[in-house]
Amino acid sequence: MSMISVAEALERLRGGCRVLVDSETVNLRESLGRVLAADIVSAINVPPADNSAMDGYALRREDWRGPTHALDISQRITAGKPPLPLTEGTAARIFTGAEIPAGADLVVMQERCTAQGQSVLIEVVGDKGANIRPKAQDIRQGATVLSAGQRLRAQDLGLIASLGIARVSLRKRLKVAIISTGEELVEPGQTVGPGQIYNSNRYMLEGLLDSWGFEVVDFGITADDPEVIRAAMAEASEKADAIITTGGVSVGEEDHVKAVVESLGHIDLWRVAIKPGKPFAFGDVLGTPFLGLPGNPVSAFVTALAIARPFLLDCQGVTHADIVPLRQVALFDKKGSARQEYLRVRTGPEGVEIFEQQSSGVLYSTSWGDAMVVQKAGEDICRGHHVDVIPYVLFN
Amino acid sequence: MSMISVAEALERLRGGCRVLVDSETVNLRESLGRVLAADIVSAINVPPADNSAMDGYALRREDWRGPTHALDISQRITAGKPPLPLTEGTAARIFTGAEIPAGADLVVMQERCTAQGQSVLIEVVGDKGANIRPKAQDIRQGATVLSAGQRLRAQDLGLIASLGIARVSLRKRLKVAIISTGEELVEPGQTVGPGQIYNSNRYMLEGLLDSWGFEVVDFGITADDPEVIRAAMAEASEKADAIITTGGVSVGEEDHVKAVVESLGHIDLWRVAIKPGKPFAFGDVLGTPFLGLPGNPVSAFVTALAIARPFLLDCQGVTHADIVPLRQVALFDKKGSARQEYLRVRTGPEGVEIFEQQSSGVLYSTSWGDAMVVQKAGEDICRGHHVDVIPYVLFN
Repeated sequence: MSMISVAEALERLRGGCRVLVDSETVNLRESLGRVLAADIVSAINVPPADNSAMDGYALRREDWRGPTHALDISQRITAGKPPLPLTEGTAARIFTGAEIPAGADLVVMQERCTAQGQSVLIEVVGDKGANIRPKAQDIRQGATVLSAGQRLRAQDLGLIASLGIARVSLRKRLKVAIISTGEELVEPGQTVGPGQIYNSNRYMLEGLLDSWGFEVVDFGITADDPEVIRAAMAEASEKADAIITTGGVSVGEEDHVKAVVESLGHIDLWRVAIKPGKPFAFGDVLGTPFLGLPGNPVSAFVTALAIARPFLLDCQGVTHADIVPLRQVALFDKKGSARQEYLRVRTGPEGVEIFEQQSSGVLYSTSWGDAMVVQKAGEDICRGHHVDVIPYVLFN
Repeated sequence: MSMISVAEALERLRGGCRVLVDSETVNLRESLGRVLAADIVSAINVPPADNSAMDGYALRREDWRGPTHALDISQRITAGKPPLPLTEGTAARIFTGAEIPAGADLVVMQERCTAQGQSVLIEVVGDKGANIRPKAQDIRQGATVLSAGQRLRAQDLGLIASLGIARVSLRKRLKVAIISTGEELVEPGQTVGPGQIYNSNRYMLEGLLDSWGFEVVDFGITADDPEVIRAAMAEASEKADAIITTGGVSVGEEDHVKAVVESLGHIDLWRVAIKPGKPFAFGDVLGTPFLGLPGNPVSAFVTALAIARPFLLDCQGVTHADIVPLRQVALFDKKGSARQEYLRVRTGPEGVEIFEQQSSGVLYSTSWGDAMVVQKAGEDICRGHHVDVIPYVLFN
């Protein structure tokens, strides 16, 4: 079992990947963070007609005869009210967002106008088109504004609403089963005995899967018993689109996950050149993709972000799962190693500070800061030089 | 009504701000994105005892007599099983995460050991402490690991779980009422008549409030009628902790929101030096804070992020609402103006690209990219120079 790079692991994983979920139609209000199953194409022009960018008066430029020549006010156009064609030689009172009447070719802001009963004096007029937002300035009928595979943000919901679309075709949420193994694990809220520790991977993983928009199918802690693990795996393959386990896939005698997965499908154990996070398993359980993360919580966190995330987002149908790291100044020195390291750091106006204790045993390192530095294998980091930084929020 | 800077607007708003929500106790599983109401202090050491970082053999260093001297294997310690004290002159088979037996002072990885029935040959031993994760290496009993006011991320949930804590004290979700005004507005899914446009602000704002972890109290579109607006405002002040409106607070004759809010509490109209987004109103409705955003969708989006967000997060009890912009290279030139501009841009490996059409009428500009550039008043941006960039995800 030789060591493979993170890039190679991702290539192998994602090479065989396909979208695992069907589409469904969902109300726009419930679509935040969800993934488009089809392009959003506009059926209308936005705005649908020329409209006023100001409160003021709409007129035909050639009707203006100078600042002392009053024009009759022939109509009053508020937003949402269809205007009449402009009577020649008159001005129309108009408000922001209201449709420009046929015949008018500019709007003068009200600060430049003096109304006198039914007529108005206009100081000065601009060019034709002044203070008019042209029809289709925002979006032209037939334009594709969002593409299948995009995850919807708040502004995308606003944009879709502006096209009059109330329901959208989305990918169903990917269902991901979590199985925690480890005789030493105890649920929070219970009492730990000697040699036992609390199960933290489950809560961390559920949080990540939630933030990626997936549906979690939680199998809790499974006893370190081949038959119990086999039953859980088989059920998970029925109920979920993908299965994640933590722990149980090292070469130790006590790890039964490997044998069970092998008997139900196939499993490859990879020594990925990633630190923290070495042992990683990939395979299938009765045809359902299986990802075996390390049991160590820091290793599980790092491999979940760096390896499981892009794979699972591919399965969900997301087309923009790749993250471009930022370049920021390192405030620390760090020798490179044979593996790609994910250093837990904190960003600030001066640069990136490292958490002193980078041992994989220190889960607190992941909460202390707001980002990770990706240090390539064999690459030394020198204080004052630029490094690749990924704020945790970019993983959402 | 003179113009005030964004910084001054924020200072005025946030100066009078206080946390508006009580605390409640919530299951850890439901706490993602929520805000801690109290510090998280560890009642235990993590790990609770020295444990093995490897699969291998635990022994006392002084019992090792060289690579040809076999040691009896006196016990087998798996994770989760309390060990017996180590019998003198023997080794204990031990697995990753298992507790070190009293008396042992190092672990040798199994790759350096050859088991022969009930005894083991050990090639070489490290220093005392080798391959042992010391008790409390991660967290010391009594340490504060997370502070009141922090929003919980996936790794924080893992950290809290690792302390055995199953329920946490959180701030209740801030309830924010949304009232859209504008006779020209029509809900998506319905048919627009002449002069009408679809209501996009409501969906955009709901998305933002969702992503900030608030509870939305939605009042839909309110008719441009003072009595209807008054009834909605009074009800909103009962049901919500804060009220947001879009539209209706400019100086136009058709804007009734101002008069209504004035009659029920107070309202200040501010000309904030922000572009897009000028008219902004702040006040209260029967004691409930009121924020009046512009009706223009791009202006509403920008003022929601730049002004409403920090205020509302303060009300929610979040202590880290401020965003530190990133510094990235501009791939465009742009003259500064008298107002602080929020340019809609897209980040890439080479730098930051600007969306060509920065008119506030073009909502598509907010969906096109992944970030905003903050251009200070009077500051020119030159291609190749660094600018302040805020990826949209940082606003979450």
